[in-house]
Amino acid sequence: MAEQKKMVEEITSMDEDFAKWYTDVVKKAELVEYTSVKGCMVIRPYGYAIWENIQKTLDGMFKATGHENVCMPMFIPESLLNKEKDHVEGFAPEVAWVTYGGSEKLEERLCVRPTSETLFCEHYANIVHSYRDLPKLYNQWVSVVRWEKTTRPFLRTREFLWQEGHTIHATAEEAQEETIKMLNVYADFCENYLAMPVVKGVKTEKERFAGAEDTYTIEALMHDGKALQSGTSHYFGDGFAKAFGIQFQDKDNKLKYPFQTSWGCTTRLIGAIIMTHGDDNGLVLPPKIAPIQVVVIPVAAHKEGVKEKAQEIYENISKFARAKIDLTDNTPGWKYAEYEMKGVPLRLEIGPKDIEKNQCVVVRRDTREKYFVSLDELETKIPELLEAVHQGLYNSALKRRENMTFTAHNLDELCDIADNKPGFIKAMWCGDRECEDALKDKAGVSSRCIPFEQEQITDKCVCCGKPATKMLYWGKAY
Amino acid sequence: MAEQKKMVEEITSMDEDFAKWYTDVVKKAELVEYTSVKGCMVIRPYGYAIWENIQKTLDGMFKATGHENVCMPMFIPESLLNKEKDHVEGFAPEVAWVTYGGSEKLEERLCVRPTSETLFCEHYANIVHSYRDLPKLYNQWVSVVRWEKTTRPFLRTREFLWQEGHTIHATAEEAQEETIKMLNVYADFCENYLAMPVVKGVKTEKERFAGAEDTYTIEALMHDGKALQSGTSHYFGDGFAKAFGIQFQDKDNKLKYPFQTSWGCTTRLIGAIIMTHGDDNGLVLPPKIAPIQVVVIPVAAHKEGVKEKAQEIYENISKFARAKIDLTDNTPGWKYAEYEMKGVPLRLEIGPKDIEKNQCVVVRRDTREKYFVSLDELETKIPELLEAVHQGLYNSALKRRENMTFTAHNLDELCDIADNKPGFIKAMWCGDRECEDALKDKAGVSSRCIPFEQEQITDKCVCCGKPATKMLYWGKAY
Repeated sequence: MAEQKKMVEEITSMDEDFAKWYTDVVKKAELVEYTSVKGCMVIRPYGYAIWENIQKTLDGMFKATGHENVCMPMFIPESLLNKEKDHVEGFAPEVAWVTYGGSEKLEERLCVRPTSETLFCEHYANIVHSYRDLPKLYNQWVSVVRWEKTTRPFLRTREFLWQEGHTIHATAEEAQEETIKMLNVYADFCENYLAMPVVKGVKTEKERFAGAEDTYTIEALMHDGKALQSGTSHYFGDGFAKAFGIQFQDKDNKLKYPFQTSWGCTTRLIGAIIMTHGDDNGLVLPPKIAPIQVVVIPVAAHKEGVKEKAQEIYENISKFARAKIDLTDNTPGWKYAEYEMKGVPLRLEIGPKDIEKNQCVVVRRDTREKYFVSLDELETKIPELLEAVHQGLYNSALKRRENMTFTAHNLDELCDIADNKPGFIKAMWCGDRECEDALKDKAGVSSRCIPFEQEQITDKCVCCGKPATKMLYWGKAY
Repeated sequence: MAEQKKMVEEITSMDEDFAKWYTDVVKKAELVEYTSVKGCMVIRPYGYAIWENIQKTLDGMFKATGHENVCMPMFIPESLLNKEKDHVEGFAPEVAWVTYGGSEKLEERLCVRPTSETLFCEHYANIVHSYRDLPKLYNQWVSVVRWEKTTRPFLRTREFLWQEGHTIHATAEEAQEETIKMLNVYADFCENYLAMPVVKGVKTEKERFAGAEDTYTIEALMHDGKALQSGTSHYFGDGFAKAFGIQFQDKDNKLKYPFQTSWGCTTRLIGAIIMTHGDDNGLVLPPKIAPIQVVVIPVAAHKEGVKEKAQEIYENISKFARAKIDLTDNTPGWKYAEYEMKGVPLRLEIGPKDIEKNQCVVVRRDTREKYFVSLDELETKIPELLEAVHQGLYNSALKRRENMTFTAHNLDELCDIADNKPGFIKAMWCGDRECEDALKDKAGVSSRCIPFEQEQITDKCVCCGKPATKMLYWGKAY
């Protein structure tokens, strides 16, 4: 009975209702479950295993670039949150407030951290005194809370898991370098581990993080043509240092303010994976973060020697890939659908006829192509096929993004594209906030970023017609 | 200037003031820093690296015993917390309450989880329907909040990091087996990774976890003779299942209530390490969880070839141990004190004379013994010495515990020991709560556990003189 619920025919198709398709996939692939805590979710074992793989890889990349992990409190006293003006204005409207400890009313209310700049600043003020104390390259893996009105699993939840890097440097140049370095780490991770192409750029002032001098972003394009901000890296200048009184004695014996950055990415990335690679049969996971890379399924398992051979193959594959064997009584057909739903990159079928020929059948999740592989060559062929799935996923995501990126030369063209063609819109911009607001009103698009890779489409702002030197990506976004 | 603060002479000695010694060590070894959030702390990179090693090892042990990680929300609605009577009575007085989201008052207040039984139960009620859905063997690594009045870093903080395992089974027997299995995992970990001997046993009814039918514990003895509960494992019977309406259809087609367990250990373990192995020179870390196992220090580093040789040795050692090299301008003497303070198990000194002899000096942190080791034998000698430090730490902790474990035959004896001899007291108990309360009043000791390894000291309760069959460990505790 329980099995029936999972059959693929129950997934809404993407074209019919993309939002419902998404919800079906996260539920039926058993990534999350709802709870009685509005806007919060249970991340189930299969979903959490994806996050563990993301975390392990990124954490290794952070450590390889010299960062250390720490852990700050989850609470921020109201007076501490209030210390940096722009920052508090950005976050205060959406924080959860703790007002009671047991039966006692607190003297000062505490918010559950929506982000931890203020806590890191307080700590830096305590431990940074000399140029010898710099830089501090810190990161933490925690959850944060933002009191969102409308929520969707992974994409926007009141509590979400993330990492937040917070660094402090003696010079502005070093801090700026760090900001870009970590943006590149994110882009590298998205492309080489999640098979997800991203556009790198800087946010407009309107879209900047509260308190930042510059916010850099990587933007990915989802199946439905909406953009998803997948990681951000902020340069703070010395604004926070001044607000929090962080000073250090430099080599020249002068007391100076240090420069800071922060950068973060979240469980949103799982939403990005789903909406970049998924299809009407369910999840499609990039091999490098898939909890199961290969599932071994015996065919005609009641026949002599089949289960044993399947077990032998499974144990062999486990030496070089994350493998699973399914020896349950369910039919092979049911199992095929189940592991397609769960997005397992490779399915390995083995039956009596295959055994006779000393081979097995390997099926790619992404293209459904079948390969006959000799049992003597698994150790080379399986890793090759996993790499092929990764490349295949990346290439089709890139091709789709290219096909869904449009150029607008004037306002009419931009409105027409926004109405009729989901995707990114490239257009020139004069730099004025008014034009940014106008495009939101008239075309329903927001600025995604000023990409590092610039093009000169025209020399006029797509909105007001004044001279323009910057090309922006515009779009509808999650 | 910053360096001066760290000099070892500034640590209070253990004998002078153990509590101050502890605080000095956690601060000066840079494990934690205080914050403006009362009762919460920053876990600094060196402290967090210890936790990462603990986490990695335990997580591997949990996965090897079939457990999967999940992540539940950090909030519990008041009505959900109220569902199990004993549980809410135990926890409600010490939870932090969220009452506002942004500027809006919440319809129902939410507590920040003090523990997550209620959330797991709600989830199990959603996903467990058939015997085929059982068992679920779940764990999560999160932080929890308990509004303690008095706090001390690692030992008792309002927020602390921990893991909480939550499992659900078709039969009572299976759940009971799980409870004991996980207690043994904790004991195994404490003894074989933290070099910390523990007493395994079951708690009295008075000391049971709120809502449990049985609470099992491992109890360690600190340097000052106080006990520290280092991990607990709870058997819930079907009490939670009944309160939360969790039922499953068994193989016989009957609807039944499943049986549950939970088990946890926390960042307290870092406090336990400090107070088990530390000395008047600072931290002493068990090699298996030490962030730095070997520190390489060049002596007369200005002389030709010394730094280069030190670097070569460091790179060699890094292949098989967690190593660090200190090439700063500080004096060797300063460095020795610094890494002693930080509890690094082995210090490797290399100077011009050593290089001539193709050897180096290795000094054990625990015994301060010096070894001359040929540079050709590092790969075998360093792991041997690390193992020797582990064994040495374990053996002296065990010996100390034996020397500090006393037997009381009657109340006078027990009171005398409690007043004059810090440590565990073994004594018989009739099983009545009144006697347990009386010993707390008269001698200031609480029951630590009914150990699995029983002895028959007398046949009478140490307190009331009535017949007694159970021997208990009593003591003062953190």
